[in-house]
Amino acid sequence: MGEEAVMSEFKHLVIVKFKEGVVVEDIIKGMEKLVSEIDVVKSFEWGQDVEGQEMLRQGFTHAFLMTFNKKEDYYTTFVTHPSHLEFSSTFSAAIDNIVLLDFPTLLVKPSPAPEPAPAPAPAPA
Amino acid sequence: MGEEAVMSEFKHLVIVKFKEGVVVEDIIKGMEKLVSEIDVVKSFEWGQDVEGQEMLRQGFTHAFLMTFNKKEDYYTTFVTHPSHLEFSSTFSAAIDNIVLLDFPTLLVKPSPAPEPAPAPAPAPA
Repeated sequence: MGEEAVMSEFKHLVIVKFKEGVVVEDIIKGMEKLVSEIDVVKSFEWGQDVEGQEMLRQGFTHAFLMTFNKKEDYYTTFVTHPSHLEFSSTFSAAIDNIVLLDFPTLLVKPSPAPEPAPAPAPAPA
Repeated sequence: MGEEAVMSEFKHLVIVKFKEGVVVEDIIKGMEKLVSEIDVVKSFEWGQDVEGQEMLRQGFTHAFLMTFNKKEDYYTTFVTHPSHLEFSSTFSAAIDNIVLLDFPTLLVKPSPAPEPAPAPAPAPA
């Protein structure tokens, strides 16, 4: 299996616990604006933990994942971009705890090709 | 922007610090085998942090990200699958620290359609 893994992209993963009282929606809006302004961000997705296994999530609640075509897009273009620098100070002020991992992705099991859209259900008789 | 976010998939994110002496390659091989055996795992990718900002990664070194079509595929099929139960004990014995987040993904900035493959470089003269 290992040999089949495809080195594909570069990911910037951030998991956070926000400070109490922070309006998370505002932070996320800022992040959405940020990624829309910086072309080298190839994709951006995020989520909020729904399971609530407090012991396993160690207080972290949100994950943010940005994808770049290559490492340099992240380190050279994204990190130094004025919009990023501006947002970083807002973001830093809002977080209680953070883990940040930056890594080239090894895609072991690629998603299957999307299935064709299902035929519409027949109208009820 | 927020309104345009697409609720798409369910992600199982694990970040870990392995115990000293653990052969990480063996663990990853086990994980590759696991995801190949369980159909509901739609995609699996992982990476090892390359930046080494120890303060920001808090000792965590690896991220593992599994994608499912829906939450039930994870909670009902994956978690209870015999291969998962078997692998979990191996995995648990290898880790020094772990954070686990399970969340429906909001894809804010989807990847652009893949570009056509570039024309092959001309042979050297």
